[in-house]
Amino acid sequence: MLGFKYYTPTEVYFGSGVEKNVGEEIKKRGYKKVLVHYGGGSIKKSGLFNVIVESLDNSDISWIELGGVEPNPKIGLIREGIELCRKENVDFILAVGGGSVIDSAKSIGLGLVHNRDPWDMIIDGIIPEKSFPVGAVLTIAAAGSEMSNSHVVTNTEGGLKRSLNHDLLRPVFAFMNPEVTYSVSKYQTACGIVDIMMHTLERYVTPDKDTDLMDRMSEGLLVAVKEAGKIAIKEPNNYEARATLMWASSLSHNGVTGCGKTAPFPAHKIEHELSGKFDHISHGAGLAVIFPAWAKYVYKYDINKFCQLATRVWNVEMNFDHPERTALEGIEAMEQYFKSIGMPTTLRELGVGEDSLEEMADKCTGFGKRTYKSYVELGKKEIIDIYKIALGD
Amino acid sequence: MLGFKYYTPTEVYFGSGVEKNVGEEIKKRGYKKVLVHYGGGSIKKSGLFNVIVESLDNSDISWIELGGVEPNPKIGLIREGIELCRKENVDFILAVGGGSVIDSAKSIGLGLVHNRDPWDMIIDGIIPEKSFPVGAVLTIAAAGSEMSNSHVVTNTEGGLKRSLNHDLLRPVFAFMNPEVTYSVSKYQTACGIVDIMMHTLERYVTPDKDTDLMDRMSEGLLVAVKEAGKIAIKEPNNYEARATLMWASSLSHNGVTGCGKTAPFPAHKIEHELSGKFDHISHGAGLAVIFPAWAKYVYKYDINKFCQLATRVWNVEMNFDHPERTALEGIEAMEQYFKSIGMPTTLRELGVGEDSLEEMADKCTGFGKRTYKSYVELGKKEIIDIYKIALGD
Repeated sequence: MLGFKYYTPTEVYFGSGVEKNVGEEIKKRGYKKVLVHYGGGSIKKSGLFNVIVESLDNSDISWIELGGVEPNPKIGLIREGIELCRKENVDFILAVGGGSVIDSAKSIGLGLVHNRDPWDMIIDGIIPEKSFPVGAVLTIAAAGSEMSNSHVVTNTEGGLKRSLNHDLLRPVFAFMNPEVTYSVSKYQTACGIVDIMMHTLERYVTPDKDTDLMDRMSEGLLVAVKEAGKIAIKEPNNYEARATLMWASSLSHNGVTGCGKTAPFPAHKIEHELSGKFDHISHGAGLAVIFPAWAKYVYKYDINKFCQLATRVWNVEMNFDHPERTALEGIEAMEQYFKSIGMPTTLRELGVGEDSLEEMADKCTGFGKRTYKSYVELGKKEIIDIYKIALGD
Repeated sequence: MLGFKYYTPTEVYFGSGVEKNVGEEIKKRGYKKVLVHYGGGSIKKSGLFNVIVESLDNSDISWIELGGVEPNPKIGLIREGIELCRKENVDFILAVGGGSVIDSAKSIGLGLVHNRDPWDMIIDGIIPEKSFPVGAVLTIAAAGSEMSNSHVVTNTEGGLKRSLNHDLLRPVFAFMNPEVTYSVSKYQTACGIVDIMMHTLERYVTPDKDTDLMDRMSEGLLVAVKEAGKIAIKEPNNYEARATLMWASSLSHNGVTGCGKTAPFPAHKIEHELSGKFDHISHGAGLAVIFPAWAKYVYKYDINKFCQLATRVWNVEMNFDHPERTALEGIEAMEQYFKSIGMPTTLRELGVGEDSLEEMADKCTGFGKRTYKSYVELGKKEIIDIYKIALGD
């Protein structure tokens, strides 16, 4: 177990109807002017927006709104948000949505409190020093941004998608009502299931040794998500399945499953070029394609860990004569599961062919400036090889 | 999954040598005068005390000390601590020890910030409104007080042991270096293993339904603790085993394994009368006796859950014809495990006989004023029945 820091101060309120108390919670903390930040407007159709602003009104909190956050949140709208918050003296940002909306809110806060352009901060590697208060009302179980220290932003100039992680980016509170996610489509639910699994899997399959406690708790989370995922796809209004996915989305990315381990997140890094370049590709769908391809590329360097994953999570029987078969069967069982919930498992299904691979690998490595350590060093050549496996030909 | 609040703001620094940074951490937070609170003085022999005060000196933090906290911390020393902190204008309490020392520090803080006697606060059911900053340097993996919202105090007048839980009682930080626990005796290590398991088991075996996510993560924790426990008893200087126990002690009681569930903690309630009355009985040893007895009393009301525990944690094969046998075998396997690490599993072994049972049951129920809901209502009669099972005759 490596040394680590663990810090998850986000105050979570979980259950049916909790979102009605959001105004009170903000008032308790002494904030006066809120930006309600959201996405495409589904929260207006569903009535959630009204519940939220009524709660703010009842607590005498004044508010303004900024909608329009797209999947893979764009730096353009973030800059607009910063201007608006400055002009209106906003002192709290309430993100009502999924990971994209929360990430967008985090980026606006980052820019506000540092008085810098947040894209430049990411590119220049500026370490945050201060925190702007962001709260979340979660509407999709997926990204885990509601408790995480991370956020991802996309710059449409160049189709770049970049992330910045820091404890100062953890939301101050998160309201989670599983019922709010009943209306999430089958496809987006499946993308969320993959994303949740990936946040734990990228912390699980690492070269670290002696990680039994975190491994076993991670396996527990993965099995529970696997089972709840099947049910949520078939029965979108199943409270228990939605609740399991929702709470797992937070636990999978708040850091608890990665304590004492390295977490290089190679599949995320390789996937970001995919959903960064192709706006029609959801991050979760991209991961369902990239992670198994990455796993097929590296499993031979850690047969034991991939066997552990195969037997404990994917119910593959251990083949002690040929452990490499068990390891591979586990990866295949994972792909079968992704297919069963309607996810793609090849780049071809996503409409991506050979012609994009080199460009994506170039961007992923900063045109040869970066490599990623993940059992082996992943540079341009290796990343192209992984993309080729992902083609599924 | 029931609705819940989850809030664990404690900043954890984990790993070899982390305790050297405690002064810097306190300085960063702006505190100036620290009470270093500790137990019987083993931290002076081991050199840990010097490391801590050197770190404080290096950060220009002035400090005073108060040692002498006993297992089952006493209200007398707590009152002394409150007087001392008032006189010396202490603005931060640093608990260097295990659960008893941290609980004692929490109680001193409670009294200081509310200007009331902390025992009266517990007895009168006063809800804390303010928080006094307490930090921990953990020396025993057991109670989980380093991240928990709870603390337990003993009043020698009447041999009463009572607890009070509130989020304002969570330490602001915890430094955990597994090497510090190498010198913990086999017996105290075993008491800690039981205590860690119990904090998860008391959240696990409850009448709640649809708790798959928390159940599976809890099972992962229990299996990892079971395995690490065996090793730590045999090899006290095994870093990985000590690290697993140490981090599990926090995760087992910071609330994460109990999200969405009731947690009536019946075995803790019944055990408190034991270690409250008999000062030679460690809380962990008491739990090793009481929990199995409680389990034998209630398992018939939730055969399925006890079978789940037996098969997933204690490696008992499921008997589908006679599930009650599987449930019982699981409880027996747990007792065998406790014995294997040197724990008692009967009251007789602890030197407690029939003559004390009624008195303890009386105190436990506040002389008939309270019952505990745990599958069935546990009143005086039922608690005596559980004590009788615990006799082991």
